[in-house]
Amino acid sequence: MPETETPSQKTAQSGPKLPKYEEVMNLAARRGYFFRAADSYPNVPAGFWDYGPLGVLFKSRYVELWRKRLVKADEMVEIDTAQILPKAVFVASGHVGSFSDPVVECANCHAIYRADKLIEEKTKRATPEGLQDAEYDALMAQNNIVCSNCKQPLAGTKRFNMMFRVGIGPLGEDAYLRPETCQGIFVDSPFLFKTQRLKLPKGFAQLGKSFRNEIAPRQGILRQREFYQAEIEVLFNPEKTDLPKFEVALDYKVNIADGDVEATPLTVSAALAGGVIPNKLVGYYLHLIQSFYEAAGLPSEDIRLRKLGEKERAFYSTVAFDLEVRTSVGWLELVACNYRSDYDLRRHTEVSKSDYTVEDDGKKVLPHVFELSMGVDRSLYALLENAYTTDATRTYLALKPSIAPVQVGVFPLVSKEGLPEKAAEIYRSLQQGLDATYDESGSIGRRYARSDEAGIPFCVTVDGETLSAGTVTVRERDSKLQERVKVSELPGWLNSRLD
Amino acid sequence: MPETETPSQKTAQSGPKLPKYEEVMNLAARRGYFFRAADSYPNVPAGFWDYGPLGVLFKSRYVELWRKRLVKADEMVEIDTAQILPKAVFVASGHVGSFSDPVVECANCHAIYRADKLIEEKTKRATPEGLQDAEYDALMAQNNIVCSNCKQPLAGTKRFNMMFRVGIGPLGEDAYLRPETCQGIFVDSPFLFKTQRLKLPKGFAQLGKSFRNEIAPRQGILRQREFYQAEIEVLFNPEKTDLPKFEVALDYKVNIADGDVEATPLTVSAALAGGVIPNKLVGYYLHLIQSFYEAAGLPSEDIRLRKLGEKERAFYSTVAFDLEVRTSVGWLELVACNYRSDYDLRRHTEVSKSDYTVEDDGKKVLPHVFELSMGVDRSLYALLENAYTTDATRTYLALKPSIAPVQVGVFPLVSKEGLPEKAAEIYRSLQQGLDATYDESGSIGRRYARSDEAGIPFCVTVDGETLSAGTVTVRERDSKLQERVKVSELPGWLNSRLD
Repeated sequence: MPETETPSQKTAQSGPKLPKYEEVMNLAARRGYFFRAADSYPNVPAGFWDYGPLGVLFKSRYVELWRKRLVKADEMVEIDTAQILPKAVFVASGHVGSFSDPVVECANCHAIYRADKLIEEKTKRATPEGLQDAEYDALMAQNNIVCSNCKQPLAGTKRFNMMFRVGIGPLGEDAYLRPETCQGIFVDSPFLFKTQRLKLPKGFAQLGKSFRNEIAPRQGILRQREFYQAEIEVLFNPEKTDLPKFEVALDYKVNIADGDVEATPLTVSAALAGGVIPNKLVGYYLHLIQSFYEAAGLPSEDIRLRKLGEKERAFYSTVAFDLEVRTSVGWLELVACNYRSDYDLRRHTEVSKSDYTVEDDGKKVLPHVFELSMGVDRSLYALLENAYTTDATRTYLALKPSIAPVQVGVFPLVSKEGLPEKAAEIYRSLQQGLDATYDESGSIGRRYARSDEAGIPFCVTVDGETLSAGTVTVRERDSKLQERVKVSELPGWLNSRLD
Repeated sequence: MPETETPSQKTAQSGPKLPKYEEVMNLAARRGYFFRAADSYPNVPAGFWDYGPLGVLFKSRYVELWRKRLVKADEMVEIDTAQILPKAVFVASGHVGSFSDPVVECANCHAIYRADKLIEEKTKRATPEGLQDAEYDALMAQNNIVCSNCKQPLAGTKRFNMMFRVGIGPLGEDAYLRPETCQGIFVDSPFLFKTQRLKLPKGFAQLGKSFRNEIAPRQGILRQREFYQAEIEVLFNPEKTDLPKFEVALDYKVNIADGDVEATPLTVSAALAGGVIPNKLVGYYLHLIQSFYEAAGLPSEDIRLRKLGEKERAFYSTVAFDLEVRTSVGWLELVACNYRSDYDLRRHTEVSKSDYTVEDDGKKVLPHVFELSMGVDRSLYALLENAYTTDATRTYLALKPSIAPVQVGVFPLVSKEGLPEKAAEIYRSLQQGLDATYDESGSIGRRYARSDEAGIPFCVTVDGETLSAGTVTVRERDSKLQERVKVSELPGWLNSRLD
């Protein structure tokens, strides 16, 4: 649970005002990737976004890659747990007590501000992390910060819990929408170990919505009140962090940035020897997550694993890396990689009075946890921004073909002479194994332009020769190169280019 | 939005006490399909369930089939919208005003009951739908119904709204967790028509969680407070319900039950001629949904489309069919098929002041809606129950291979002589294209028994001949027949049996 903002996220705060973010988001809305929720209604609260038709397909491809490269490759188990959990679970996790932001309410006009953000805005300086309420009050007094609305002095910083409360049943029993998916994993883990014959170390994966009641979200799709996480919690015996299975990663180069310096590619072996990584287990999972983003199409040099200093880490975390990606809004955190120690399972043991230990080589062990907590929506944004390309004549999304939402567009050259019928037939047959679109409206140039913006890697044009010789023109999106391919060989031709 | 319970659901109310439901759910928990949420905590409120490892895979296969047979086959667009929506949306939809159940609170001990259920329980008779609050009070007085807890008389029926309220931001702005996914579709539809160049008729699909704050859910996984829906909303021009595209369904036999009588298979043509179905559009979508469940493995004779009478239909619905399936808990509603008229888009137009019309052949049309609103969790339950088979020697899940969560298990005959290594190699290679498990613990008989319970259709056993002759034994789950297959031909052999 990355509860506090990292410096890189602070940079991102001002990001959405940059032209590139706006350009990418405009294209994303226009082409049906994502757009603000309930678009037809006025005054919809900030922080809610919807996925359109291309967005749903894009997210599916991304999740499939996550399943293949992480869940399946590491023999993890994926589960899908309730989003609403009883209060006791979040008492144990610490969210009821401390998942909060400092706020100040104007005693005169009742406007409410987030204290640290307001001080930052007025002083143009970063506010230190984790101050006490009285310290915020002092800073406001020192800097003569008044209510932006009515200009009266501000004081009396309070805490605003960022969980959404829901009341269950007619008595309104306390429960909360989860602020992270992983608590569902923790509280199910004793049952799963018992019934599914699992052994340590074991990764548990979950994809789903989480919810945080941000005070005033201003970062567009990069900070939402309702968002997708893909979380992996690896439960392990803390005495066995150097198993042979982790050694496949030893020669892999992780881009570690220790503090805020430039990242240096370093083999896992060298990082272990230098003490930057505490053990092979951590090295192995950092290698899995970095190589996942490389496979998704991000250039290695735009990815870094930033090691967090003591003050930046959550209180339960003994070692933490943020996987960050270089974007127009600064280095953007996509994954929090946290060594959570036995904090979670110990707290759930105490509050639930259940046994969370697991047998390992005949001994009962309270597992430790290493997590890879991924923000899905901002990962998809980062992939789109990375793919967003403009040249003199056009804008296109240079997405890797394997992750593009729609893989092929089929166009009849003209809307007559039997070409639409033939093109529709080819389209339907390609739809069996791929995601295809059919388009016959406008000039062929306009159809190419639309499909370039949608990120479709291949366009198939059906013309007179298709009828006479059984061939079509296939145009590749990035190079604009065209090739004649036999209709019968089309599925194979496309599939060989989609891996 | 099926807001009231149908008679068939009432039958299901007592269902979970039947042995078969319990047996199926026990197996489902034991094998990791689904189980109660936060299992390690005491006193977790009813109505929340989690999917385990096999459940996640099973749900994925089911959703993929839904995408293939409905979304893709009908050229629908799938979107994924926010679960939290502002109050105005649910004022428009009618949920703020009338999505409620009658409750009565004991003036003495403050116990709360659902009025209609309590009357049913005490009188052992069905309570008519849609009574006024005073009528419930009268029935309680007539039947001398007292508080089950303190035996004092009950009266003063009130309404309890079944939406979960959430407060957004520090001011706690009113918003709700959606009680159905479709409102997100309706409120996005103007934006999607405008930007995605869509034409009427067009189906919009959405898979996701919905939330209903049931007063006292007692039906296990069949009635949850948080549940998955897969909803399809077809927007169409009400003057064009007989397009040629709908005619592919004319010869298909729909199992229509008019009222509570036995279903009769009837071609769509005949149902149209007899006036049971109002138009070809409705016939076409009823055919799509019935054939989907047939493809998922339910016998046609266990599926019926029950036409609802006027009193059973939601007030905005002009024609409605419930797709129901025969189970041990009675006929179970899986899909509400509703002709919602222009109710939704008209109400959203009024409240949002936006334009919801769509251009069709040069004219502005306010689309009508036909919906297929599917309960995913209960559909998966119905498939498991249908597959649940016991004979003298074993219990197995006879799931269709194409929908089974794990398709193949790989076992070394003994844990020595190089067999585990060979089996692990075969397992890893099958994992590339399928979902496989590897198991080397216990006798081969016990491993078959476990995989039968998990519904795995094929088991591959690696023995001495695998090393010497490159062949394995493949055992088919239902027939228990065994066949020798070459390792090199295994992927093809399996794939040909999975379609």
